[in-house]
Amino acid sequence: MNHDLSTYRYLVVAEGQFGPLTSKTATSAVRFIPDRVLAVLDSTRAGRTVQDVLGFGGDVPVVATVGEGLPLEPTALLIGIAPQGGGLPDAFRPMLREAIAAGLHIVSGLHVHLGDDPELARLAAERGVRIHDLRKPPADLPVSQGRARLVDAYSVLTVGTDCNIGKMTAGLRIRDALTAAGTRVGFAATGQTGILIEGWGIAVDAVVADFIGGAAERLVLQAAEGSDVVLVEGQGSLVHPGYSGVTLGLLHGSMPDAMILCHQPTRACPYGAGNAYHWMPLPSVEEMIRICEGAIAPLRPSKVIGISLVTFDMDEAAARDEIARIADVTGLPVTDPVRFGAEPLAEAIRRGAEAKRACRASA
Amino acid sequence: MNHDLSTYRYLVVAEGQFGPLTSKTATSAVRFIPDRVLAVLDSTRAGRTVQDVLGFGGDVPVVATVGEGLPLEPTALLIGIAPQGGGLPDAFRPMLREAIAAGLHIVSGLHVHLGDDPELARLAAERGVRIHDLRKPPADLPVSQGRARLVDAYSVLTVGTDCNIGKMTAGLRIRDALTAAGTRVGFAATGQTGILIEGWGIAVDAVVADFIGGAAERLVLQAAEGSDVVLVEGQGSLVHPGYSGVTLGLLHGSMPDAMILCHQPTRACPYGAGNAYHWMPLPSVEEMIRICEGAIAPLRPSKVIGISLVTFDMDEAAARDEIARIADVTGLPVTDPVRFGAEPLAEAIRRGAEAKRACRASA
Repeated sequence: MNHDLSTYRYLVVAEGQFGPLTSKTATSAVRFIPDRVLAVLDSTRAGRTVQDVLGFGGDVPVVATVGEGLPLEPTALLIGIAPQGGGLPDAFRPMLREAIAAGLHIVSGLHVHLGDDPELARLAAERGVRIHDLRKPPADLPVSQGRARLVDAYSVLTVGTDCNIGKMTAGLRIRDALTAAGTRVGFAATGQTGILIEGWGIAVDAVVADFIGGAAERLVLQAAEGSDVVLVEGQGSLVHPGYSGVTLGLLHGSMPDAMILCHQPTRACPYGAGNAYHWMPLPSVEEMIRICEGAIAPLRPSKVIGISLVTFDMDEAAARDEIARIADVTGLPVTDPVRFGAEPLAEAIRRGAEAKRACRASA
Repeated sequence: MNHDLSTYRYLVVAEGQFGPLTSKTATSAVRFIPDRVLAVLDSTRAGRTVQDVLGFGGDVPVVATVGEGLPLEPTALLIGIAPQGGGLPDAFRPMLREAIAAGLHIVSGLHVHLGDDPELARLAAERGVRIHDLRKPPADLPVSQGRARLVDAYSVLTVGTDCNIGKMTAGLRIRDALTAAGTRVGFAATGQTGILIEGWGIAVDAVVADFIGGAAERLVLQAAEGSDVVLVEGQGSLVHPGYSGVTLGLLHGSMPDAMILCHQPTRACPYGAGNAYHWMPLPSVEEMIRICEGAIAPLRPSKVIGISLVTFDMDEAAARDEIARIADVTGLPVTDPVRFGAEPLAEAIRRGAEAKRACRASA
């Protein structure tokens, strides 16, 4: 675990893009580690509060410059947006210089690795601060061998009918519900935002393809230490034309005891790249359960034990109707964990964990 | 297409490891581009012929030093073995220096990129020779968008119950059979040995995980130009605990019209890493057909249209019995393309290509 990352207090850069749909990492930081977000930098929205811009987040200020944020005593600068192409925008370089000069560590989820930038690496070394590239994978990953199936903890992977459909959020909400009731939970973060929130993890979409499963295996083995339940953050979808390889590697590397399926009732086609995938209808929840269970069946039996919906774009009555309908056709617990709470899913996981423990104890 | 690679005449380095099971790339070079293998370097077997060591390959000499091979006038040195760990063995460095000094280009399938080695890069630049790292992916790969489904050519992917089960060999044998009968075939190489043989391609297991499908899509679009049939070299297996992510990404990126399933009747468990996977039985051919067709069904319909067996470890009567049995249970053409010829599979592909052409013409 990277203890630095889990203690940093952030000045979050979202220059020109701060908003609920345009700054995923910044928005997730506000949502999931609010106590450690001291200010957001966006000169085009300076003077407002985070609440003004996002609709939540309280009176954390939006500032125009790094210097304006420094009196709040951040310990790190977080790049909270993902510019087109993944590179470092020229406009960011002066901010990074100023932050490093002020003794702030740098945390980045960009595709390009800032630690490999000669100027920034030199400045950081001279000032004695660290550059954390959240998407940079370890250099020594193995090919997975199926060892994650052997952990004592009960392991659960969030899967989805699509990418960008609430797999990380569902996992974190379930984690909170389990933890509140006394279950010891290890959260295996597999994407940059999850790593930022948890303080450790591996961005499995950024590893060399042969090592997707090996990255997942390593995460589960580590998260299982001292845990009753391991929650693995899912990525992509087994039917997404662009990302399915990452998803299957993650499923076969993590070898979960069970899965939670994430779904958005209003979504018709796979997400991404404009309308690039609008030639393909998404499967129904029932079909997707069969696809997920079928994909891991040759390696081990594993079942979908609950459904997590994204319903923010439905009125409450329609959302509750859809939850009841899906619960009826699947026979599984269903909720929107953000809107209606994660307890039904947490309860399904507690029951599964208890059954695994009882089975092992009787062996 | 890299025209250099397709014209090089090789001195093949297999130092200490030349043999049918220990030098996969060297052995494949002898098998598939015999006219361009002038000598094999292995000081522990020097003085013998390739035929002596492999049981095929004729009187191509095994030599002890680079200098001993130079009178045969090779234009490139090929590293034909894959040492543990993928790095460059210390013993190879003097050979590479000597080869570069003699004006030979360098071709390598090692995990480590020789072009990034400061000494070798400098020597090559000074001498005006090229270093080809077969596993180094392009820097500009996209996320796949399913465009490979739109090509006019009939596209076929080799899939398998396991990795290392004849997917490249089946593809090359089928290519030869189709070409001999006048079909224009584009071969999309996806692994280092296929790239060596074809002179172009992308090692899909070496790309960043998000871009597996994008690499496959690009290969199919390129191979389809001027071709009646595209044969895509498969990798891994949808049920292999270590490599399945690469396999699904390749399937969804290549969007094939049809699949050829490769299988070894005597194999019980997934291949690799000693006995690491001996906790898991491989699926039967019938089960694997369902798995492959089911994995692409949400994106498009695509069927397994033939079975390619590896039977070198069965006597001929047993092999013919197994071919007849599998043909009976599947209703598909079945052959061992190395032992009994690829014609039944080529014929199935010709029929499929004709049906696609007729369907398009009537649209």
